[in-house]
Amino acid sequence: MTGFVSFVSSGPGDPELLTLKAVARLQTADAVLFDDLSSGPILAHAHAGADMVAVGKRAGRPSPKQDHVSRLLVDYASTGARVVRLKSGDCGLFGRLEEELDALKAAGIGYEIIPGVSSAFAAAAAAGIPLTRRMSARRVQFVTGADVSGTLPSDLNWAALADPLATTVVFMGKRSFPALVAVLVAHGLPPDTPALLAESVGHPAQSLTRSTIAALAQTLQNGTSSLPGLILYGPLALDLP
Amino acid sequence: MTGFVSFVSSGPGDPELLTLKAVARLQTADAVLFDDLSSGPILAHAHAGADMVAVGKRAGRPSPKQDHVSRLLVDYASTGARVVRLKSGDCGLFGRLEEELDALKAAGIGYEIIPGVSSAFAAAAAAGIPLTRRMSARRVQFVTGADVSGTLPSDLNWAALADPLATTVVFMGKRSFPALVAVLVAHGLPPDTPALLAESVGHPAQSLTRSTIAALAQTLQNGTSSLPGLILYGPLALDLP
Repeated sequence: MTGFVSFVSSGPGDPELLTLKAVARLQTADAVLFDDLSSGPILAHAHAGADMVAVGKRAGRPSPKQDHVSRLLVDYASTGARVVRLKSGDCGLFGRLEEELDALKAAGIGYEIIPGVSSAFAAAAAAGIPLTRRMSARRVQFVTGADVSGTLPSDLNWAALADPLATTVVFMGKRSFPALVAVLVAHGLPPDTPALLAESVGHPAQSLTRSTIAALAQTLQNGTSSLPGLILYGPLALDLP
Repeated sequence: MTGFVSFVSSGPGDPELLTLKAVARLQTADAVLFDDLSSGPILAHAHAGADMVAVGKRAGRPSPKQDHVSRLLVDYASTGARVVRLKSGDCGLFGRLEEELDALKAAGIGYEIIPGVSSAFAAAAAAGIPLTRRMSARRVQFVTGADVSGTLPSDLNWAALADPLATTVVFMGKRSFPALVAVLVAHGLPPDTPALLAESVGHPAQSLTRSTIAALAQTLQNGTSSLPGLILYGPLALDLP
């Protein structure tokens, strides 16, 4: 008897931004493997008898435990369990989903992927702005600001990221943003390009900072909180002073 | 007495991919303005006494009625109504949200934006693949394949779109995809780059076509269905024959 794994996107953190399908999968799960960022109200949808397993990954930090998570998934599913693997935001976006999928394929275990609300969309919504603008922002791009060592990846497409006609969302990029901005400005992006820092979106501690890329880089250079955060920049419809 | 408008993302079409917050707003709405793509089970969350107003927009087609929609929103909210403006996918992505926000701001009417599941995430999830890959796809970009006239926009960033290290999602691009591929290949993207055509994602008529950009362009050149569709291309983890 073989189990089944549902990769469930838990959204940006606000328990109300769970999908109905995510709630349904949590309610019928025998085991739930979740990251540290998953909040209590989300986990509370699981039934009282489910095994709740914190796997200790935190967004924005390299994890030495990826193999361990994959092994746990396979081990639970091999007992015949209905397993929910809960991942924040949308699980297919910077969630290291592929490693876990590969482990299940190698073990012959079935799976499904339940998409969810990306924190990028939640950040724009919280700021009251669209991600696209009909004339000035017809391309939206998502990148990670940290490679496995936690620093700015050296091989990003700088010209694409310095395009003034795109909205860019940088995940896990608070620490490396000053370095990124230096490269972007060298590639021609104006220093007064609007920027939005969105921290703890959808959590009670939510904080939105409306700025420009140059000013935000300066702020982050001087120190940053430990709150998880996203940075949006480009022709954003922010009402800057 | 002034009303309030909730811009509610209805997700890709699968009623189970609504968020809990979207359901809550539908349940308490006095009026729901929805596009043609919204499905019955989603609308059924509204209470029996709500005004249900089809505003006749269809994804992928230019709409002559944008001003009309904005006027309707303002008119309903001005009566003191709690208005839900339902938009498919995530409402901040290629949803022409800004025109409607501007109309509400001009009229002094309050609003909120409820983010949702983009059809891009649902398409990748349906195909069982992540949008990002740790080594080969660290940038994801969303573009529209049709401008207001329904043809390929002439001012897209071709170099960014021809980047072999990005996953690209083309919205409303089935008809213009052959023209897009010609430009991409001219900019160096290999013709055998994996491509996924995802039609009617999350609907009973869902269809997934795993191909390459060159082969898919040929197929679409020979004719296409009227189903709404997304195209993903790049270093996708598709198991191509």
